[in-house]
Amino acid sequence: MKIGVIGTGNMGRTFGLLWASNGHDVLFGSRDRAKAEAVAAKHERARAGDVDDAAAFGDVILYTVRGVFPSTLLRAPRALAGKVVIDCNNRDFDARIDRPTPEVSLAERLAADVPQAKVVTAFQTIPHAVAELGRDKLAPQRISVFLCSDDAAAKATVQGLVDELGFVGIDSGELKRARLLEPVGDFIRLHIGARGHGIFTSLSIQPVQR
Amino acid sequence: MKIGVIGTGNMGRTFGLLWASNGHDVLFGSRDRAKAEAVAAKHERARAGDVDDAAAFGDVILYTVRGVFPSTLLRAPRALAGKVVIDCNNRDFDARIDRPTPEVSLAERLAADVPQAKVVTAFQTIPHAVAELGRDKLAPQRISVFLCSDDAAAKATVQGLVDELGFVGIDSGELKRARLLEPVGDFIRLHIGARGHGIFTSLSIQPVQR
Repeated sequence: MKIGVIGTGNMGRTFGLLWASNGHDVLFGSRDRAKAEAVAAKHERARAGDVDDAAAFGDVILYTVRGVFPSTLLRAPRALAGKVVIDCNNRDFDARIDRPTPEVSLAERLAADVPQAKVVTAFQTIPHAVAELGRDKLAPQRISVFLCSDDAAAKATVQGLVDELGFVGIDSGELKRARLLEPVGDFIRLHIGARGHGIFTSLSIQPVQR
Repeated sequence: MKIGVIGTGNMGRTFGLLWASNGHDVLFGSRDRAKAEAVAAKHERARAGDVDDAAAFGDVILYTVRGVFPSTLLRAPRALAGKVVIDCNNRDFDARIDRPTPEVSLAERLAADVPQAKVVTAFQTIPHAVAELGRDKLAPQRISVFLCSDDAAAKATVQGLVDELGFVGIDSGELKRARLLEPVGDFIRLHIGARGHGIFTSLSIQPVQR
């Protein structure tokens, strides 16, 4: 599969390199070309470009730029039309946690910004350091990745990309359910940070054995 | 320990009887005396009364009446002063999930209603049928119960009552963190119901093995 990664921070770098290691062709696109080059140099199946290059290259796009939407970020946002766009963004973490959940999620705002794209939200509860442990260590632990989308085929594509990383994809329904994923993302980060559980912490749905 | 259970629905009945089985003295208090008698008859360490009897009896109170606060429910709400009051209530489940998180949680509203009580919120993510499986089946599964309170000693008391049921109590911080527990409660119920995972489903924080 051809995967375009927009943004080369922790999430973009980690997931892009993992998918390259799994045999996908990955183009890392950054507003800072040198950063994209540095990340792409880490794997032979990876190449570098700008954010529009990544949007044009991928059949699947991992969109990691928080709070900046394609109509602002890209010269040619229509390059995303018909593509699967994975949103992995959490709202800014507010340690006070004394604000209401917004009435619309970041994922919905992304979808509204590029209405021809097939937006799937995923990975909001996964610290990149956990993903980096790799499939062999992760698979037996059965850690949930929650997926929301209004497009069943796009969700199935992302489910495949989730599973091959060693996670368990959980179908959490329509894209608007991302409104619940935002506070759930805050909740796991509360425990990682303020409650001292550390970055190697997971939040998973598990069947209860009777 | 003397435990007063206010409300004899699924949560009150289940947890009260489990604690009675663990050797605690439990008084079930209901607005419907016959209902309290029927539940109390199931265990020799249990007795029945009205909601004020339960408030007066317990050192710890399990408060299971949703959306009706002590100043309305009780003739003598001051009976709760100085006591540990466990709030286990979720907001009404709204299958549409298209509303914002309230700016204040039910647990905080309960605490504001009885300011001399030591409110601890717990069990929001636990279906009563899961608790009924009992300690021996639950303990190896290490299922989280999230606890929020502004009173460390009260939280420690409830942590003990959680642990003895076979759950793992997780300190989720101050009472205001219950604002995150409400959407987390919605999130697990979304999966139990609309997503078809069924009532024997858990949501837990787990350390990731490296």
